[in-house]
Amino acid sequence: MKIGLIGFGKAGKAVANVILGSKDFSLEWVLKNKPESGFLTAKEALNIEADDESVIYSRSEIDIDRFFEMHPVDLIVDFSDAESILQYGSSAARHGVKIISAISHYQDDQITFLKELAKTTTVFWSPNITLGVNYLLFAASLLKNIAPGVDIELIEEHFKAKSGVSGTAVRIAETLDLESESINSVRAGGIVGKHEVIFGFPYQTVRLVHESISREAFGSGALFVAENIKDKKEGFYNFEDILKPYFFDQASSLS
Amino acid sequence: MKIGLIGFGKAGKAVANVILGSKDFSLEWVLKNKPESGFLTAKEALNIEADDESVIYSRSEIDIDRFFEMHPVDLIVDFSDAESILQYGSSAARHGVKIISAISHYQDDQITFLKELAKTTTVFWSPNITLGVNYLLFAASLLKNIAPGVDIELIEEHFKAKSGVSGTAVRIAETLDLESESINSVRAGGIVGKHEVIFGFPYQTVRLVHESISREAFGSGALFVAENIKDKKEGFYNFEDILKPYFFDQASSLS
Amino acid sequence: MKIGLIGFGKAGKAVANVILGSKDFSLEWVLKNKPESGFLTAKEALNIEADDESVIYSRSEIDIDRFFEMHPVDLIVDFSDAESILQYGSSAARHGVKIISAISHYQDDQITFLKELAKTTTVFWSPNITLGVNYLLFAASLLKNIAPGVDIELIEEHFKAKSGVSGTAVRIAETLDLESESINSVRAGGIVGKHEVIFGFPYQTVRLVHESISREAFGSGALFVAENIKDKKEGFYNFEDILKPYFFDQASSLS
Amino acid sequence: MKIGLIGFGKAGKAVANVILGSKDFSLEWVLKNKPESGFLTAKEALNIEADDESVIYSRSEIDIDRFFEMHPVDLIVDFSDAESILQYGSSAARHGVKIISAISHYQDDQITFLKELAKTTTVFWSPNITLGVNYLLFAASLLKNIAPGVDIELIEEHFKAKSGVSGTAVRIAETLDLESESINSVRAGGIVGKHEVIFGFPYQTVRLVHESISREAFGSGALFVAENIKDKKEGFYNFEDILKPYFFDQASSLS
Repeated sequence: MKIGLIGFGKAGKAVANVILGSKDFSLEWVLKNKPESGFLTAKEALNIEADDESVIYSRSEIDIDRFFEMHPVDLIVDFSDAESILQYGSSAARHGVKIISAISHYQDDQITFLKELAKTTTVFWSPNITLGVNYLLFAASLLKNIAPGVDIELIEEHFKAKSGVSGTAVRIAETLDLESESINSVRAGGIVGKHEVIFGFPYQTVRLVHESISREAFGSGALFVAENIKDKKEGFYNFEDILKPYFFDQASSLS
Repeated sequence: MKIGLIGFGKAGKAVANVILGSKDFSLEWVLKNKPESGFLTAKEALNIEADDESVIYSRSEIDIDRFFEMHPVDLIVDFSDAESILQYGSSAARHGVKIISAISHYQDDQITFLKELAKTTTVFWSPNITLGVNYLLFAASLLKNIAPGVDIELIEEHFKAKSGVSGTAVRIAETLDLESESINSVRAGGIVGKHEVIFGFPYQTVRLVHESISREAFGSGALFVAENIKDKKEGFYNFEDILKPYFFDQASSLS
Repeated sequence: MKIGLIGFGKAGKAVANVILGSKDFSLEWVLKNKPESGFLTAKEALNIEADDESVIYSRSEIDIDRFFEMHPVDLIVDFSDAESILQYGSSAARHGVKIISAISHYQDDQITFLKELAKTTTVFWSPNITLGVNYLLFAASLLKNIAPGVDIELIEEHFKAKSGVSGTAVRIAETLDLESESINSVRAGGIVGKHEVIFGFPYQTVRLVHESISREAFGSGALFVAENIKDKKEGFYNFEDILKPYFFDQASSLS
Repeated sequence: MKIGLIGFGKAGKAVANVILGSKDFSLEWVLKNKPESGFLTAKEALNIEADDESVIYSRSEIDIDRFFEMHPVDLIVDFSDAESILQYGSSAARHGVKIISAISHYQDDQITFLKELAKTTTVFWSPNITLGVNYLLFAASLLKNIAPGVDIELIEEHFKAKSGVSGTAVRIAETLDLESESINSVRAGGIVGKHEVIFGFPYQTVRLVHESISREAFGSGALFVAENIKDKKEGFYNFEDILKPYFFDQASSLS
């Protein structure tokens, strides 16, 4: 499966790292804003041995339509910025390229555009594309569904410099309908990222904990999604759509 | 909903405690092996103020069929021993009384008998009747289903004197297909009971943790089951059957 | 070592429980405010088999001076209220009885009185008499001493109904000089009590965690103190005074 | 304070990273086995902006005595291999350069040599040079000293591929006199490194937890040691010698 990566910042590099290390996927090219100084390919820039081409192109220097013809891929993984979908979206859809976007925030008109593209190709969007966090959301809302009256609190821990409540914590709180008093933010040293949902029952406690080790988790998440949407038809998908089939399998296998 | 409780050992007393404290359920009577010295009712024995009758009877002194006529209940909760189903089962079924059994181990012929009763009335059996542990099993096997290759390890912690691997840990290991090397048993001081399933991904870790606070969790679990089987027809049910509908609700609510 | 216990509320009963179960200490009597209805001894009231006399007396019905003559003890353990020291203090000091007080708060004049008593007998006071919490305070302030610039956060978890920040958390925060923003209070279900001090370094994290299982920890703490002050002369002691010698032993044994 | 670094493997690079980022220390040079291909300085190799010279030299190409004259430093930090002390040790001692060695294992004769050098200069050796792990050892053995009968168990978690019990776990077990049954090794995914010492008391549990975030912790540890030995006379020191003064400060500040 041939992948084109948009964006080569910290997250983008970590994602390239994972794709380059995967046997089932090939990183054909990377499209970035500014030309990479000194490196022609992602594998050079990241010092990884791989067969993937992984040539780095600059967004400002290409004609996108011609680019897709010259450098065909099955799938685009987008870790750049909200605007870039406007540049590559229509061309990608026209060439039948599936799109996986991990952009944190889109404007309403950009979401409308994504949905428009989804009439022609497969479009997936998740603001947090790690498997662990999405599973946590799923499993936590299941338990709340089973026990609506249970006390729920959230502890999120990150490095000292991180300001504000983490985006993931906000999403968990929204999903579980938590008041802001129930979100406890710990900022200390170099903690990469930890989210712990505490379900307090009168005589027992259940904790769901997600710990981030590195940004490469975004890469694993993107490939997990790629694997799961490769046979999907055009349409607009999110992470729940990907997880739900496992859910039903699970439920049936237990019967 | 009128409940009759079979068994008044440590677990049985904790269960009585929870039923007596509940508004929606009434503890009509307790059936125990030996007569309780000095106390006529469970509420006296446990020093709880409640309207429930909760009269304590001795199994050896009653005619079970006549007993069900004189002291009708909707539901039996059984925390006694594997044999007692043979005493009360047929009478209960004949009188349309639902049965919730929390017996740890049944012989094969006893299970056959349970299934026979299930042709006439609603029979539920779970060797560990806490909501938390059953949810953990469910949620853990879901994640394994999603990520079959993930590394899974189990840590179970209990008080120093507990010998052998905990029954719950064995059940988790069976459900997740873990080797015995992946079960880590910690025995220290007075730890009531903790089970932690660790899912190790390359760039992130997910932990599902259950901590027991007290035996009353069995009571909450029994009442949760009671609430969920009250409208169920005759048949043989386990905890997964109870959780599954929440699961499907959940899955549909996310679409 | 003969012990007299003042106070027979929830904490007092838990302490009696531990003393009755100990070989090295004997519970001679319990002094409580209201007469215990129905029970003459603590061992009856708690349903424990023990050789200890453990007779329950009512404070209002005795002449305290005569009481100490008739029922001599080596040590008083006080889990009652701040006022009771005024009743028994002078008599105890006169009879050479050591005093261990676990009263949460004393008025200034009561502390002055304690120090006055300490000129004649051994007086120990700690508002939280568990070994674990006092060790935590000690070990945490040591690490802060070693690494003054480290980020410190505190998470304290208790049952839903507990209002306000826990007294132990306040004490930890004072000892470590934490701002109130660094105290995270989780209230959920029936959590007995957990305190976690997080030391965040740039490239590593250290966590000191104390989990309460039951109030009996107060009893163990009282006996630990009793063991450690039995050879101490008159004077006013706190928990640090008890721990410090182990500290120096430790430091020397490592050299 | 001018530092020379011996060794430029994974750990050595992480240490260089920390020294280059520090204001109080200057990385004068790095001595490595093989010449670094393409990079003349550590700051180039690690892509860090810094004023430090940090020139990379190859061990095979220099005359060590002349090298110390031409490139004077106050301190050597050694993250290379057990043999290299034989090359640079005598010269360093002759030039009054202090030595901090973080080599995991030395042969007996190498340790004898270190002690010989310690007659002339300040020599520090610790097989695990992180502050967190050494604090953990210290704090854990203190608690064991206070409560000799407490149940102690150890859980160590590392990435799947790590074989055998971790060296740190072995050291903790030796220090606390634990049987091998009490060491629980979890291997899952990409866990960087976690050590948890559990102290189980009858009614409470104390946990001391160390979590590694990255190898840079070795660098922080080395600089912590450098800061603490800079005024020390000749002699052979270990991490306990460094921590002990804080300990005594601590104990006195509490009196």
